[in-house]
Amino acid sequence: MSNIVYIATSLDGYIADKAGSIDWLHAIPNPEGSDLGFGAFIDRIDALIMGRNTLDMVLSFDIDWPYSKPVFVLSNTMTEVPEGYEDKVFLVKGSLEKVIKQINDQGYQDLYIDGGITIQNFLKQDLIDEMIITTIPVLLGGGAPLFGDLASPLQFKHIKSEKLIDAIVQNQYLRVR
Amino acid sequence: MSNIVYIATSLDGYIADKAGSIDWLHAIPNPEGSDLGFGAFIDRIDALIMGRNTLDMVLSFDIDWPYSKPVFVLSNTMTEVPEGYEDKVFLVKGSLEKVIKQINDQGYQDLYIDGGITIQNFLKQDLIDEMIITTIPVLLGGGAPLFGDLASPLQFKHIKSEKLIDAIVQNQYLRVR
Repeated sequence: MSNIVYIATSLDGYIADKAGSIDWLHAIPNPEGSDLGFGAFIDRIDALIMGRNTLDMVLSFDIDWPYSKPVFVLSNTMTEVPEGYEDKVFLVKGSLEKVIKQINDQGYQDLYIDGGITIQNFLKQDLIDEMIITTIPVLLGGGAPLFGDLASPLQFKHIKSEKLIDAIVQNQYLRVR
Repeated sequence: MSNIVYIATSLDGYIADKAGSIDWLHAIPNPEGSDLGFGAFIDRIDALIMGRNTLDMVLSFDIDWPYSKPVFVLSNTMTEVPEGYEDKVFLVKGSLEKVIKQINDQGYQDLYIDGGITIQNFLKQDLIDEMIITTIPVLLGGGAPLFGDLASPLQFKHIKSEKLIDAIVQNQYLRVR
């Protein structure tokens, strides 16, 4: 069982710019429409956990629903899944450990942990086992940070580095406990 | 003429931990004492520019003076170079553009820009041409950040990625103007 982060950041560690936008993610020419390994990653995982903000952002995009695996949304206030997503989105609440156990017990072992706040909350409790970080070569100079404060450092081991579309680097790290 | 950053950061973008220490830089086993490309980089540059804090930190280390090139120290308050460093350290002050011109005019073209505050000040004025960033696979969870606020984003181009001592990744970026 693994809790895995898969996310793109700017060189200075932001996942959204000062205006809350992620348009800069798409500023790099990608003529062949590479998915930057996203499809292969989704194949690897069994389900997603994200916060409500991330769900709202994904729903706001003018694209088809991008996830072929169940999406568990952490929310203490939502009572209903948005219409049309009843077979795709599932609400969970309570402590992260309890939520993870509940999802693991349903047979979903490898979980894609998405969204800045959710990732930070998982890291605060040392619940992340692996991170795949795609670094976009731009300094945004402000915005929503990927990482937050921690009570104590967390060591990782670098596994793999891959250059994608001749422009950006994707690194894979495993937690060393 | 190039102004070049060469620095190590944690995965979450800190150059010193919450206690101001850089001991975590040396936590990775390095049995053969690789210099992680530092010597080759110093060969490439003509001089260094650093802030007074960085000079004080380097002087506090129990090591030989690590720079074989002239070190220009930005300080509006220092009036004397520390004793014994009169042929190694040179004080400069005034606007960064003026300081850079003054150093370039002495024949020093490729400059190693060092120290968190100095790097941030150079970036704020878009005076950095290249960055070589070595990422240590640890989340520190707080400390002195490498990057700071910018009025607007700065685009870079990824040039090279290299894995060192089978543990850390060094990336080279060029400013795209």
